[in-house]
Amino acid sequence: MNEVIQTILAHKSIRKFKSEPLSEETVTTLVECAQAASTSSYQQVYTIIGVEDKEKKRKLAELAGNQSYVADNGYFFVFCLDYNRHLLASEMKETNVSETIESTEGFIVGTVDVALAAQNLAIAAESLGLGIVYIGGIRNNLKEVSELMDCPDYVLPLFGMAVGYPDAEPGKKPRMPIEGVFHKNRYQKKEDSLNYLKQYDEESAEYYTKRTGGKRVEGWVSQMAANMAVPTRTYMKDFVHSKGLNKR
Amino acid sequence: MNEVIQTILAHKSIRKFKSEPLSEETVTTLVECAQAASTSSYQQVYTIIGVEDKEKKRKLAELAGNQSYVADNGYFFVFCLDYNRHLLASEMKETNVSETIESTEGFIVGTVDVALAAQNLAIAAESLGLGIVYIGGIRNNLKEVSELMDCPDYVLPLFGMAVGYPDAEPGKKPRMPIEGVFHKNRYQKKEDSLNYLKQYDEESAEYYTKRTGGKRVEGWVSQMAANMAVPTRTYMKDFVHSKGLNKR
Repeated sequence: MNEVIQTILAHKSIRKFKSEPLSEETVTTLVECAQAASTSSYQQVYTIIGVEDKEKKRKLAELAGNQSYVADNGYFFVFCLDYNRHLLASEMKETNVSETIESTEGFIVGTVDVALAAQNLAIAAESLGLGIVYIGGIRNNLKEVSELMDCPDYVLPLFGMAVGYPDAEPGKKPRMPIEGVFHKNRYQKKEDSLNYLKQYDEESAEYYTKRTGGKRVEGWVSQMAANMAVPTRTYMKDFVHSKGLNKR
Repeated sequence: MNEVIQTILAHKSIRKFKSEPLSEETVTTLVECAQAASTSSYQQVYTIIGVEDKEKKRKLAELAGNQSYVADNGYFFVFCLDYNRHLLASEMKETNVSETIESTEGFIVGTVDVALAAQNLAIAAESLGLGIVYIGGIRNNLKEVSELMDCPDYVLPLFGMAVGYPDAEPGKKPRMPIEGVFHKNRYQKKEDSLNYLKQYDEESAEYYTKRTGGKRVEGWVSQMAANMAVPTRTYMKDFVHSKGLNKR
């Protein structure tokens, strides 16, 4: 197993960091790695905002649901889907790209572009001994986050990422059985899906029971069935439309 | 610079592969790497379909706009956003997750989850000396691709990925200047965006002119302004809704 695959397989989200900040050189390397990812039709539909201002980090932590590690880390990135740049390009050349950048297709392209760049940055950071955690929590209050970051129309912060020197050693949560996630030639039959779900429910229940000394016993199926029955961020459709995105 | 960062920075999309197939062991390692990626609230909103059937690969290549490397490669993956599994989980436990899995927020979560997993697989493949190319082209005819893969409701193929031993050495297209993509503490001012766009337009025009012996001279700004003025895949909103996703 090479160093790259070792790094990838060793991933665990880190939620407690030492106070040591990342050097400017490290930050630059990480962003260069993000930029090296594949991008749909060369569009590069992302902007990465490095949040260094302590007051802004504190505010972001609050908006993300009081997650202290959003403020306390080695560096904090906000990853934005960005079609503002393509709008400017069309204005410079007097064309009209509205239908493209406002479409559902464009929203898929942009969201994928942002995530590929972010994951490159994550892997690069982990290869340097840093820990990372994705912060979907910035979508708890996306209007406020968007204003705090001065994002114009056609720019949507999708998630944040805290990076830093790890100050915790969390366990590695067991993933779905590979046969449940990896199908061959066609989507698997319902009976197979149900079998793998049952198997996974037991395995994950065992993991949690062991980790909590017997206290918490729900497996993945119960967790998802309960957690996802409570809708969150239900304002998202309207907010995303208000920024000009995912509209048609 | 470590091996991981070297691998990431050396990325180029490969569109011509040797006929040598990936071993089953390699395919398994790649999927395990995909599964190791971060996933929002442990939801794992993805299914990866390995397409080994030659006739299906040929059909996919046709549907993706006659891209030969979709059929001719070492392996082909289709990456799907998948909330069917969470629907089954809710049925097993008699809860209702419809509002969550049909929402715009859910669509963001799922699309990001799929892309993080895919990028892990891409980096792992490249670390083994393999080449990769993302195939957004499967969205040219997504209804047909979806049927070919037997995807149930709440499952949406987002993109494919051809993997294999490279049989080409393409150039590396210059990315946006880092200052254009990486902002500090707030989204940059419009005048700065315009300056970086102009700089990038010149740099990329120079690259293309050099690469084509003077024939092609448009830079990134002109390319985007022209290409994106032609909307593509305009059926996407309706099709995605018909699968139950991104609806509310």
